[in-house]
Amino acid sequence: LLHHEVVPYPDDIRERLFAMFPPQRFAADELALLHRDIGEAIGAAVLGVLDRGGLDVASLGALVVQAPTIFHGPPAGGRDGVHMEIGEAAVIAETVGVPVVADLRPSDVAAGGQGAPLSAFVDWVLFCHPERSRAVQNIGGIANVTYVPAGAEMDDVVSFDTGPGNMVVDALVRSLSGGRLAYDDGGAWAARGRIDRGLLEYLMAHPYISRSLPKTTGREDFGQPFADAVLEEARRRQVGAEDLLATATACTAECIALHYRRELMPRRGIDEVVLYGGGAHNHTMVCALEEMLAPIPVRKHEEFGIPGDAREAVTWAVLGDETLAGRPANIPAASGARHRVVLGKVVRAHPEGAQA
Amino acid sequence: LLHHEVVPYPDDIRERLFAMFPPQRFAADELALLHRDIGEAIGAAVLGVLDRGGLDVASLGALVVQAPTIFHGPPAGGRDGVHMEIGEAAVIAETVGVPVVADLRPSDVAAGGQGAPLSAFVDWVLFCHPERSRAVQNIGGIANVTYVPAGAEMDDVVSFDTGPGNMVVDALVRSLSGGRLAYDDGGAWAARGRIDRGLLEYLMAHPYISRSLPKTTGREDFGQPFADAVLEEARRRQVGAEDLLATATACTAECIALHYRRELMPRRGIDEVVLYGGGAHNHTMVCALEEMLAPIPVRKHEEFGIPGDAREAVTWAVLGDETLAGRPANIPAASGARHRVVLGKVVRAHPEGAQA
Repeated sequence: LLHHEVVPYPDDIRERLFAMFPPQRFAADELALLHRDIGEAIGAAVLGVLDRGGLDVASLGALVVQAPTIFHGPPAGGRDGVHMEIGEAAVIAETVGVPVVADLRPSDVAAGGQGAPLSAFVDWVLFCHPERSRAVQNIGGIANVTYVPAGAEMDDVVSFDTGPGNMVVDALVRSLSGGRLAYDDGGAWAARGRIDRGLLEYLMAHPYISRSLPKTTGREDFGQPFADAVLEEARRRQVGAEDLLATATACTAECIALHYRRELMPRRGIDEVVLYGGGAHNHTMVCALEEMLAPIPVRKHEEFGIPGDAREAVTWAVLGDETLAGRPANIPAASGARHRVVLGKVVRAHPEGAQA
Repeated sequence: LLHHEVVPYPDDIRERLFAMFPPQRFAADELALLHRDIGEAIGAAVLGVLDRGGLDVASLGALVVQAPTIFHGPPAGGRDGVHMEIGEAAVIAETVGVPVVADLRPSDVAAGGQGAPLSAFVDWVLFCHPERSRAVQNIGGIANVTYVPAGAEMDDVVSFDTGPGNMVVDALVRSLSGGRLAYDDGGAWAARGRIDRGLLEYLMAHPYISRSLPKTTGREDFGQPFADAVLEEARRRQVGAEDLLATATACTAECIALHYRRELMPRRGIDEVVLYGGGAHNHTMVCALEEMLAPIPVRKHEEFGIPGDAREAVTWAVLGDETLAGRPANIPAASGARHRVVLGKVVRAHPEGAQA
């Protein structure tokens, strides 16, 4: 790992993207323009990161991209799922001047899978230990775990989404702050509140939580409509802002602990948890999780040599490298796919190279 | 060429696609579902064609796909253009079990081009003659020409859209028949009418026709809104159905002839025209063109060993083969791109092969 940065999407792009999530409607020209503009934004971000990292674009062999998902629907009714990301890979290749691998999830979805968790392959590569069974837990918008039992073969790996990560808390913070705040920094707001048991039960009754494996979730389950329903329920129960956030924060930890007890501990146990993702910065969330899982140690991804904030990028780089080598990198046991598949679409940069 | 067929999209897919053309609005879930379903429809069509052609899928090295365009916008205001096709290539690769090359146009658009005409490269490969300057004319929904002067190098090739092909006539036929007819079979309906000079002038005043090269057009210029305006104008002028169709049919030929006179003849002349596309079956349109261009012979693509109806597929196969070989296949002088570019996105089929 030479350099890493998190570069947020420009506000304009975020707003146009969020205005396209169902049930909102839009026209094909707005879609196509955003498709191009996201490509340009990703390309520009990459050039900026290379520049600030003192890296020459000529040292870059390829770029692996996870563009924003505009819709994800799991397999249902005997039909394969659907997954669509926007951000034109040809524009990224043109902007940066290197080959691009994009659209990794749709390949697994086309093979009957959930398109996730793709990180399972990389969790297995990075964290397989001869004697320790590990739960590698990512808390992003959605929280997902990869269980890598001691001495695991690839087929022993279990991976699924445990439920909401920061998505619900973030949406509540945006609402409760009138749009001023995007997330609960460090979990400080939630730390001032107390968990409301009744409201927590309401949250934990979400049907995703009791569904059997394999399973994944997303904005369609825990997006704005769900957050709005939670806000309404909190008002009905007269639960104030601080207690509401404390409860939603605890819900993420509770979902994780519940799935560990039900799905993972009965296998080969859990010797340690490896935590990363935005939620790893939320002290309130992490403390709740440690309390629920004690005495199992909750270690940070950083301790293993890769900063948690760089992990998503490392995951994608490893997966795309498999693609360029012509090797499949999904784990059917984790995603539910019918078979292994070479992930993604490859765009060659133009022969002269934009930057080279 | 071992076998070819034209397989129409299922009615359901056509209807859902047409309901997404601007200014109509739709939601991301409808879009993503159609993206998958078009992929499945293309995959199923390919399997059907192979089956009816007595061809084994194992004999197929790759599939090159031109999926439906949901929006195309040319470069404007110093910004590159936009081009978006839907039909998930990963689904096609999964269904057929061979690698897929898709999304060829967006690569040229990302390099600042119009994304068209990509057929120019293949016109040059097929029709370059040491002593004859040729205009290779395709009349599809839009009509486009590739001018291959005698002994042309690639950079001598000129290619652009001459204007509407069958798009306007088809739309008028649908309206005038109350949706019963999709096109004017053989040009028989138009043959019963007479050209209305005033209405023809109205049609020829479309700003695309006077624009300078390079240029391409599409549904955004000559789609349903334009056809509706033409219908309204015809009503205002009290031009009946037969005369309206005769006039719209002549308009396609007039656009072609006008562009030949203005853009091509002043170069190295035209010794013969090579005609293909749906419009080549419209006798009224072909006769009008022959009359306008006499004494230049208008020859059919078939005479050169490739049936006109197979030409689009041959074009795409040749272009995709260049992609798989890592060679660029756009012609910047034709498309307006800043440079040559390897076209498209490559999806590897899964290693086991769905059908193999």
